Amino acid sequence: MDQTIQTLLNHRSIRRFENTPLTEEQIEILVKCAQSASTSSFIQAYSIIGVKDREKKEALAELAGNQSYVANNGHFFIFCADLYRHHLIGEREGIKVEESLESTEKFMVAVIDASLAAQNLCIAAESMGLGICYIGGLRNNLPEVNKLLRAPSLVLPLFGVSVGYPAQNPEKKPRLPFSQIYHENEYRQDEDVSYNSLEEYNEILSSYYKDRTNGVRSDKWTSQMAQMLSQPQRMYMKEFIENKNFGKR
Amino acid sequence: MDQTIQTLLNHRSIRRFENTPLTEEQIEILVKCAQSASTSSFIQAYSIIGVKDREKKEALAELAGNQSYVANNGHFFIFCADLYRHHLIGEREGIKVEESLESTEKFMVAVIDASLAAQNLCIAAESMGLGICYIGGLRNNLPEVNKLLRAPSLVLPLFGVSVGYPAQNPEKKPRLPFSQIYHENEYRQDEDVSYNSLEEYNEILSSYYKDRTNGVRSDKWTSQMAQMLSQPQRMYMKEFIENKNFGKR
Repeated sequence: MDQTIQTLLNHRSIRRFENTPLTEEQIEILVKCAQSASTSSFIQAYSIIGVKDREKKEALAELAGNQSYVANNGHFFIFCADLYRHHLIGEREGIKVEESLESTEKFMVAVIDASLAAQNLCIAAESMGLGICYIGGLRNNLPEVNKLLRAPSLVLPLFGVSVGYPAQNPEKKPRLPFSQIYHENEYRQDEDVSYNSLEEYNEILSSYYKDRTNGVRSDKWTSQMAQMLSQPQRMYMKEFIENKNFGKR
Repeated sequence: MDQTIQTLLNHRSIRRFENTPLTEEQIEILVKCAQSASTSSFIQAYSIIGVKDREKKEALAELAGNQSYVANNGHFFIFCADLYRHHLIGEREGIKVEESLESTEKFMVAVIDASLAAQNLCIAAESMGLGICYIGGLRNNLPEVNKLLRAPSLVLPLFGVSVGYPAQNPEKKPRLPFSQIYHENEYRQDEDVSYNSLEEYNEILSSYYKDRTNGVRSDKWTSQMAQMLSQPQRMYMKEFIENKNFGKR
């Protein structure tokens, strides 16, 4: 099996890092790898903010729900959906672009573009022996994050990525059964078959947690999900993104 | 430079493939690599539909704007945002999850999850010597694509990925300047500096097109973008995704 496939299959999120900052060369190569990802109609609708400032990192760590590894890592990247430079082009070239930029379609394009770039950066990092962790917790409080980063209209911080030298070696968490994720020719909808396979997956995940915690935890995936989803989170999001001029129409 | 970084930096989209289908083993390893990507709070909110059926592939190629490489490739994958199995869990476990599932936050989570998985699949494919092309054109007509794939409520096809043995060797398209994409500590907003750097990029892209087309094309990036964005596309999207119960609140 080639090195890249091994890197991909061995992914696990790292939540404790050595106190070694990335070098400028490392940051540059990571960002260049991010930029090499595919982008919808070459629109390149994203930006990356690298946070080095200690105070800012600590503020972000707190905003993300006191996740220490947002502050303590080799580097902290924030990926933003970004149509601001396209707005600027419209302005400078005297062409009306607002209806496009404010569309749900272009919001999706920008989120997808940013995500493809982020995943490239993560894989590049892991291939260099670094560890990564996505930080969706930034969305706990985007208005504050937004202010801290001075992100203008049409720039929306989506998530962070902590990168650094791993100071832990967690086990890989078993994913959903292949048959849940992969469908052939069309989407299967047999609810009983589907739910049975989720129950089998519950067993696998349960014994994964038991093994790792000496029997303290034995969560089922379906219960984790039901529990999490019973409490609506970040319900300010729709209004917030529309105020940033994303997905308004 | 390691093999993975080389693969990432060498990416180019392939739009002509040999007539060699992927093997089941190849499909399986690609999907497993996709599944190894990070996922928000372990929610795994996506599905992949692999289309083999010849008629279906041709219908999709037409819907995507007569892109022949949607039908002619080694395999065609469609990535979907998927919260349907979470809906099923809520139903079976008697827990109210609809408010969560219909939130803009969870719509973003599902789009990001699907995109990270897709990018893993693409990189795995490229490391195996295969070529890939993202097919956002599926969003030209999602209602029809949706019907063809029998995607239920809370399953939203986002884009396709054509994979196969490359039958062309295009050049790599130069990306935006590093300084456009990467910001330190906060988002820079000097419009003049930013627009000047876009004009420098115009020169680079212009000579790229000139070299490739013996002078026939010499597009500037800013003009390409202004032109594209002056014509709003896929404006049915907001209503369509809300009808699929995504991003309603």
